[in-house]
Amino acid sequence: MHKPALLLIDVQKGFDSPAWGQRNNPDAESNIKRLLDAWRKHDRPIIHVKHCSVSPKSPLHPDQPGNDFKDEASPLSGEPEFSKTVNSAFIGTGLEDYLREKDLNALVIVGLTTDHCVSTSTRMAGNLGFDVTLVSDATATFERTDTDGVHISAEEMHRVNLASLNGEFCVVKSTTETLELLDEK
Amino acid sequence: MHKPALLLIDVQKGFDSPAWGQRNNPDAESNIKRLLDAWRKHDRPIIHVKHCSVSPKSPLHPDQPGNDFKDEASPLSGEPEFSKTVNSAFIGTGLEDYLREKDLNALVIVGLTTDHCVSTSTRMAGNLGFDVTLVSDATATFERTDTDGVHISAEEMHRVNLASLNGEFCVVKSTTETLELLDEK
Repeated sequence: MHKPALLLIDVQKGFDSPAWGQRNNPDAESNIKRLLDAWRKHDRPIIHVKHCSVSPKSPLHPDQPGNDFKDEASPLSGEPEFSKTVNSAFIGTGLEDYLREKDLNALVIVGLTTDHCVSTSTRMAGNLGFDVTLVSDATATFERTDTDGVHISAEEMHRVNLASLNGEFCVVKSTTETLELLDEK
Repeated sequence: MHKPALLLIDVQKGFDSPAWGQRNNPDAESNIKRLLDAWRKHDRPIIHVKHCSVSPKSPLHPDQPGNDFKDEASPLSGEPEFSKTVNSAFIGTGLEDYLREKDLNALVIVGLTTDHCVSTSTRMAGNLGFDVTLVSDATATFERTDTDGVHISAEEMHRVNLASLNGEFCVVKSTTETLELLDEK
């Protein structure tokens, strides 16, 4: 893997709103912070993506305090940021052009939520030809309801969605396994 | 919904290979046929997408007999076909341009498989601004294994993936509910 860039998807305060329901993996933010600290220490590329909802009532709307990045994932000066209005980090943004221009062919993806913006961005990244590692314990999602009205836990949403992605669009690894990538260089 | 086009994803013989494992929803093809017959009867737009794997051993490689469309979904003369090499029907194809040119803003998506090509194409369609209906009983998928090596049934893969898509990227409906769209015009 050449120069893997750390791509942080929607690590924003608005996801702390109770409106989203029960979440899995409370350790996602601390694992994201471990990866971010390591990427900074090794001076590797870091890219932040922020969701700017077009729905005024969304906790992620730019006028809402929840639009801000979480403290654990706050960008430092010089770290590029891309804003998006849909799930995919590659639609309506300059992200693909930026990655091509910087010759960044490999991505390590973390952030929120597993089955919405993270899955969609991972799928597009893989289909666009990027070499993608998705970090299972540095992402999380929320409980949902199936089309028959039956509840599905956040952990089950997370687990099944990772099973759909792994080996088809990306390789799923843990934070610890991903940190080992930095020492391969 | 204006002029909904029926978008058939990868309804190809290669998915009958036992290599894919256990599948759910054996009625998918008959439901796809019901929709296709109705779309033809009402002279509504129909678009076929074919997966042309770049892996020579894939049952969906163009040199393999499995690359052919299934009999239930075989295109008629004049029905456009788009070939793709990745999961998304919108990457490396002229599909988006075609839809914009024809002013087709609404899509009814069916085909194989729920969590790979159908999900990825549904996500991109929704994120590109199309009004998407995904037909739950006109798609199907295969059993998979989670990242801990635990088996997940095809039906569970299907159910959880539809729960991730419904209300975020599309509206999930049954074949019968979808057929009612034709009478709304």
